Amino acid sequence: MKVLPMTKPNPIQDVIVRSFDVPLAEVLSDAKHGDHTHFELVTATIVLADGSKGTGYTYTGGKGGRAIAAMITHDLAPFLIGREAQDIGALYDAMQWHLHYVARGGIASFAISAVDIALWDLRGKQTGKSLWQMAGGAADRCRAYAGGIDLNFPLPKLLDSISGYLAKGFNGVKIKIGQPTLAEDVARVKAVRELIGPDVTFMVDANYSMTVDQAIAAAQAFKPYNITWFEEPIIPDNYHGYAQIADATGMPLAMGENLHTIHEFEYAMADAKLSYIQPDASNCGGITGWLQAAALAQAHNVSVCSHGMQELHVSLVSAQKNPGWIEVHSFPIDAYTQRPLVVENHLAVASNEPGIGVTFDWDKLTQAHKEMHDEHS
Amino acid sequence: MKVLPMTKPNPIQDVIVRSFDVPLAEVLSDAKHGDHTHFELVTATIVLADGSKGTGYTYTGGKGGRAIAAMITHDLAPFLIGREAQDIGALYDAMQWHLHYVARGGIASFAISAVDIALWDLRGKQTGKSLWQMAGGAADRCRAYAGGIDLNFPLPKLLDSISGYLAKGFNGVKIKIGQPTLAEDVARVKAVRELIGPDVTFMVDANYSMTVDQAIAAAQAFKPYNITWFEEPIIPDNYHGYAQIADATGMPLAMGENLHTIHEFEYAMADAKLSYIQPDASNCGGITGWLQAAALAQAHNVSVCSHGMQELHVSLVSAQKNPGWIEVHSFPIDAYTQRPLVVENHLAVASNEPGIGVTFDWDKLTQAHKEMHDEHS
Ligand SMILES: [Mg+2]
Ligand SMILES: [Mg+2]
Repeated sequence: MKVLPMTKPNPIQDVIVRSFDVPLAEVLSDAKHGDHTHFELVTATIVLADGSKGTGYTYTGGKGGRAIAAMITHDLAPFLIGREAQDIGALYDAMQWHLHYVARGGIASFAISAVDIALWDLRGKQTGKSLWQMAGGAADRCRAYAGGIDLNFPLPKLLDSISGYLAKGFNGVKIKIGQPTLAEDVARVKAVRELIGPDVTFMVDANYSMTVDQAIAAAQAFKPYNITWFEEPIIPDNYHGYAQIADATGMPLAMGENLHTIHEFEYAMADAKLSYIQPDASNCGGITGWLQAAALAQAHNVSVCSHGMQELHVSLVSAQKNPGWIEVHSFPIDAYTQRPLVVENHLAVASNEPGIGVTFDWDKLTQAHKEMHDEHS
Repeated sequence: MKVLPMTKPNPIQDVIVRSFDVPLAEVLSDAKHGDHTHFELVTATIVLADGSKGTGYTYTGGKGGRAIAAMITHDLAPFLIGREAQDIGALYDAMQWHLHYVARGGIASFAISAVDIALWDLRGKQTGKSLWQMAGGAADRCRAYAGGIDLNFPLPKLLDSISGYLAKGFNGVKIKIGQPTLAEDVARVKAVRELIGPDVTFMVDANYSMTVDQAIAAAQAFKPYNITWFEEPIIPDNYHGYAQIADATGMPLAMGENLHTIHEFEYAMADAKLSYIQPDASNCGGITGWLQAAALAQAHNVSVCSHGMQELHVSLVSAQKNPGWIEVHSFPIDAYTQRPLVVENHLAVASNEPGIGVTFDWDKLTQAHKEMHDEHS
């Protein structure tokens, strides 16, 4: 005998997709993505038959946003409309299989992320629960560091920028490395450590610009400066290369922002000897994908951090039993939400609002997008 | 002293993107992609300043086409316009880095494939060389088998379809497996082998619908029927799982249609113990990506086959020193090109025309797309 569901039908009726180019105040650079002039924000709002709504979203560094929006509009929305929204896990798996031939990473991971986050927003609103409660509930706050996209900053500007982070209440900072010579990177690392003193947490990020041998040399050279982790020394695909660097130097390694499938996280956990993992819910399958990566990390005793999207990751990292740090990214998302990131006693504080705790200021987003395109036309 | 280039500037002036939904004569099914009602064809035509043109393209099974077109239009075309087209290898690497944050597989691999194939078409037209000559030149013809998307065909229809392949001149056939029980799969395999006799080459394809244990049991059960290869028994991400099946059964294994980056091919070669690799130029980075995968396979003594896109792969596989078979796929592309596949003495024959040897009948494509959408509106 089949037991009938207790709830009344309330299927997904619409998926509203919006795309914004959000300008940066200045051009920002890192070792492998080049110059950033703006970021792309793609939002997906799921509307149920009873009129309730949830909004999810994803980011890019300036490329791929149109493809993500096209995939949500043409491939995911028709698949979702008419289905019930409650069983997020089942919908997540179904979306992965639906897109499989053109997916397993890349644009599909970004598109599924936006939709999955919208489903969690709906769940929170319907159950009255905040994201940190839904995602594990261990705590409502976590450690945070400010990370600059500052490879092109001359040293005085780099140090000013670091001082600015400390003034804002952060006790952790990260800089980009990947200057033409290792000596230049070391000089910047040394200058930053001298500025911040011995007690501030300090990480470096090479955005996979090095070979294994270069990374080993860099890790050795950074040792006097108490680096908490060396992020993405080499390409994310070379898991065994990470292990070589860890074995040769003992330097704690971090990566994850470029892992888009659970299989990639599995390989990273099995083979890369990471000390920290940094999944990004905007590109690893949303909250469902992020929690899968976090569970895997916990099983491997690896501390769970995050990449970008601090306004949402604050809730996910806080909720974990093995939390690391959230990265507070320099994309100015705080200017476009109702709740800029809260930092108290160096800790980032999660929202208690039901849902994902991120509400956009649509007028501001629309205005910024318009201004950016007027400028260029 | 810098030597100036010998050639006059002739930069890329335009990238024209077109998208077609091409209907199938009937609904076709496999184990994991479900029902196919149409395929998507996305074309990219690169126009140089002097007016010369090259056309490349990619396929999907019905999802992702809009995202691919959006990525070529919004992310690749602006990047390409103004650049010289000759150094395809450098452009290929540059496109991979340009898209890296939203790429490494998925939609980006399809988008880059279409552009890369257009660049090779231009190169062939400008040098007067055919694709089989440019791609290695070992031969102008290769072995071929007909592969059906026939999981939902009742047995009599399956056997009719196989007889049809033999009547068309093929001496190799492949069927889909993944019926509800192994006994049903075995019964179909047995019936096909009895129909075709001992001398026709026979493969099976599970479209990764099995677990490792199920695949081992299936491989053992198929042994009496002289199966040349067992294709995609399990998900493409589980390289070590493939090796387990190969070790446990000795059954030759094949995969590759779902590998989209050179790193995925490297893992497959290092860990999966494959006997055949089946890269698809429409989704592994075009001709450049396909030739990289083929070179890797040759270094590992693995025979190079292909997935789908027979009108183009006939030239690529023929050109190799370690050729396997091309798959002649059931998508009816022959109805929309100027040169339907030529089969002589069971061998598929490559075009001698300068360029990629594939010229579309744009009117027919436009008409088929229109008819399909009229039907549904
Ligand atoms: Mg980073
Ligand atoms: Mg196949």
